[in-house]
Amino acid sequence: MHAFDAALRLEPVGTDRLPARFAGHTSADYWNMVGPFGGSTAAVVLAAILRHPDLLGAPLSITVNYAAALTQGPFEVQVLPARTNRSTQHWTAAIVQNNEDGQPQVVTTATAVTAVRRETWSLSDRPMPQVPAPAELPARGFERAMAWLGQYEMRPVSGSIPETWDDRLGTDSTTRLWIRDQPPRPLDFCSLLACSDVFFPRVWLRRATYTPAGTVSITTYFHASAQELQATGPGWLLGQASAQEFRNGFFDQSAQLWNEAGVLLATSHQIVYYKA
Amino acid sequence: MHAFDAALRLEPVGTDRLPARFAGHTSADYWNMVGPFGGSTAAVVLAAILRHPDLLGAPLSITVNYAAALTQGPFEVQVLPARTNRSTQHWTAAIVQNNEDGQPQVVTTATAVTAVRRETWSLSDRPMPQVPAPAELPARGFERAMAWLGQYEMRPVSGSIPETWDDRLGTDSTTRLWIRDQPPRPLDFCSLLACSDVFFPRVWLRRATYTPAGTVSITTYFHASAQELQATGPGWLLGQASAQEFRNGFFDQSAQLWNEAGVLLATSHQIVYYKA
Repeated sequence: MHAFDAALRLEPVGTDRLPARFAGHTSADYWNMVGPFGGSTAAVVLAAILRHPDLLGAPLSITVNYAAALTQGPFEVQVLPARTNRSTQHWTAAIVQNNEDGQPQVVTTATAVTAVRRETWSLSDRPMPQVPAPAELPARGFERAMAWLGQYEMRPVSGSIPETWDDRLGTDSTTRLWIRDQPPRPLDFCSLLACSDVFFPRVWLRRATYTPAGTVSITTYFHASAQELQATGPGWLLGQASAQEFRNGFFDQSAQLWNEAGVLLATSHQIVYYKA
Repeated sequence: MHAFDAALRLEPVGTDRLPARFAGHTSADYWNMVGPFGGSTAAVVLAAILRHPDLLGAPLSITVNYAAALTQGPFEVQVLPARTNRSTQHWTAAIVQNNEDGQPQVVTTATAVTAVRRETWSLSDRPMPQVPAPAELPARGFERAMAWLGQYEMRPVSGSIPETWDDRLGTDSTTRLWIRDQPPRPLDFCSLLACSDVFFPRVWLRRATYTPAGTVSITTYFHASAQELQATGPGWLLGQASAQEFRNGFFDQSAQLWNEAGVLLATSHQIVYYKA
């Protein structure tokens, strides 16, 4: 079993549907500094929604708020279809973990929308930037810094982590990189969601100063259908991320993820805490 | 009383805090096509959070999902501080309205984060575009189309609604406009949030074809402090909005709002249904 699928393993708890409850366990393979990689936490929430027996359609949007770091061990995902319309369904969700006193605490809140989509007039206003193909670029091995980085193969294109922390102000906050699961795994909505959170903190790029940072809230919009994800298979994604504003302890980030064929699969936004 | 404040009038219901409940009523002044203007609905959710006795800090981010159109009449806002940390607080919220059978139905879901912020190193990567001042631009009167438009004074800068619906493909999906409350009202977090949803559907601009469209989910990040909003006062905001992808019934929109002094007050993202 791929480590990503193992990290998303969920067991239904009871038969309640208000909300439906799923038991999971944190994965050492996706460990970040002080908790799981946020992309894997978001993917766990989405996986629970996709397991719900009343699911309508496919993911359209999801917002995940990181209220507290998960600790290593078991957790419960609670998901509720708060409103089901003809072609859209609105979800609320939470991850709950017991504290040291055995009291359940909310560690993650989330909302999501799933939708039945049909083919319509479509147009992209964000063409994939012209960049070298992944095979033309060297791999960069920062796998050892944190466990989750070892689960991805990355080929930096531009805007990489500064080589030296010399406090130099960068000229912009844009990073481009090719990324895929390591070992490769066919793309699905959960792994696409996880990939929308793989970028190192923009504040490091903009100001080569080592600064603790962590995502507070992420929102990802899915533009691709399950068929387009299948067509992408285990191929590379081009990721691009930029910040707009760094202000008083928080910056924003906007990201795009294209497949190698240049199809914009997802766009994503987050607000990130930084200590400065 | 300003119409915006009247639209946000809330009365506590009972003394429960799990969740706290507030009674409100839709405003005819902010009516859109088939329900209230989404910006005012989002502002009502935020107003309830800001009224909660346990509030920590000021708004950092909010996501509002429009599960169903509100009908004219009373509604209830339910807000819960799901997790309170040292300097951040995570909120879940919903708007509930009774259906024809008197059964409460979720019409809006939301999450938000409030935070106590302190001054840090800060930097903007999204300078305000160079545009003519509002006084140099003519007002455009589309007030009569929908009631809520009459509550705003707008000065289009570029990317206005097509004059003719001739199916012409536009060259991009960017709109710039100056906006303020009509009559002017000192800016606060709720009115800033409402302003982040004032843009007409990007699909109209990109393809001059009249197309029904409606926001499904909006996320707004607040970069400004209460002091910066106070300094903006009743002044103009420059709003800019662009789409990245129109695909199979949904497009995304990213927006920025600066004050006249060029301070980026908020950035906002939404996913929008369109019928094509």
